[in-house]
Amino acid sequence: MKSHRRELWFNLPKRRAFVNITADVQAAIDESGIREGLVLVNAMHISASVFINDDERGLMTDWEAWLEKLAPEKPHSQYRHNDTGEDNADAHLKRTIMGRETVCAITEGKLDFGPWEQIFYGEFDGRRKKRVLVKIIGE
Amino acid sequence: MKSHRRELWFNLPKRRAFVNITADVQAAIDESGIREGLVLVNAMHISASVFINDDERGLMTDWEAWLEKLAPEKPHSQYRHNDTGEDNADAHLKRTIMGRETVCAITEGKLDFGPWEQIFYGEFDGRRKKRVLVKIIGE
Amino acid sequence: MKSHRRELWFNLPKRRAFVNITADVQAAIDESGIREGLVLVNAMHISASVFINDDERGLMTDWEAWLEKLAPEKPHSQYRHNDTGEDNADAHLKRTIMGRETVCAITEGKLDFGPWEQIFYGEFDGRRKKRVLVKIIGE
Repeated sequence: MKSHRRELWFNLPKRRAFVNITADVQAAIDESGIREGLVLVNAMHISASVFINDDERGLMTDWEAWLEKLAPEKPHSQYRHNDTGEDNADAHLKRTIMGRETVCAITEGKLDFGPWEQIFYGEFDGRRKKRVLVKIIGE
Repeated sequence: MKSHRRELWFNLPKRRAFVNITADVQAAIDESGIREGLVLVNAMHISASVFINDDERGLMTDWEAWLEKLAPEKPHSQYRHNDTGEDNADAHLKRTIMGRETVCAITEGKLDFGPWEQIFYGEFDGRRKKRVLVKIIGE
Repeated sequence: MKSHRRELWFNLPKRRAFVNITADVQAAIDESGIREGLVLVNAMHISASVFINDDERGLMTDWEAWLEKLAPEKPHSQYRHNDTGEDNADAHLKRTIMGRETVCAITEGKLDFGPWEQIFYGEFDGRRKKRVLVKIIGE
């Protein structure tokens, strides 16, 4: 069994954003030399997300509106987490809905994906340096 | 390390449905010959889900009502994704709540499950052919 | 490839609670002797959760209030699952939002985590014995 590790770094200029990282994950698989196995891709921060969906601009607008409805940012005072001096309690809740991680199959050296599957980094408390971990195991 | 890959195909007659696929996943483990490892089961489409819960009819009625409350299908015009000519933005959101994938342990050749755990395929935009990927690694 | 399996047992005195199990998962990794690989940590019950977030008391208060808003426990009669004599339909829905499982990377024998990542057991129907499965594969 072989394993490989790579970090992806982000410093996004807005509080919330979605970034397609599919090509970065495939690049990590390529450098690993692993042909059959699994790749774990996870946010290393608890106010960010990694998830799989369609790369369609309208959908990103829909997620932004929908997450604000389910877990509104403001008023900040509605959350006890924000009593600590933070203002990002909503980011913890939004990331909970979108998910911390994805595990994907690697087959013949490629991400084994359906036609529209793309991997996204979801940022919910940006304007700082944050990381995603890519861990690959297989042969 | 060994690996094994199998696809499960669906073409469900309704827009939304839940299908218990536990026996299909165990059959894939059986044909792999893998005794200790992990199995990844994921929807290959971004308007469908794979998740683990109880196989109880009332609960499926509850999910349907609950998901419609959190991410209603209609009016279709409430979602920017539907400006593209699609009508399935709600399916992308519902699948986000229910999850794309599950990873399960394989111990002594069997799904290593608690007493009520069952694997489901959740369809949120049916009436077309769609797939689930089963990828198994182990020894 | 090596594999290792451990169960964690809980019998929590309240219906809902969050327990930090990070040290228990690391202890299972230590006893496995695995240095590079993946660890799956999953609730073996469908009314409980395993997830990763920040160990901050205010946040736990926020989750409790937020989950009650998205999937209220009462009235019990609002859920068809409860027609079976159960009163825990809300626990199935809350666990769906929080997630059944997490998969984490193991690097140099340690959980490969960002600065605030902690693993939690989320109980949504306690006052009974319940289990979490830790399954580790690697080398």
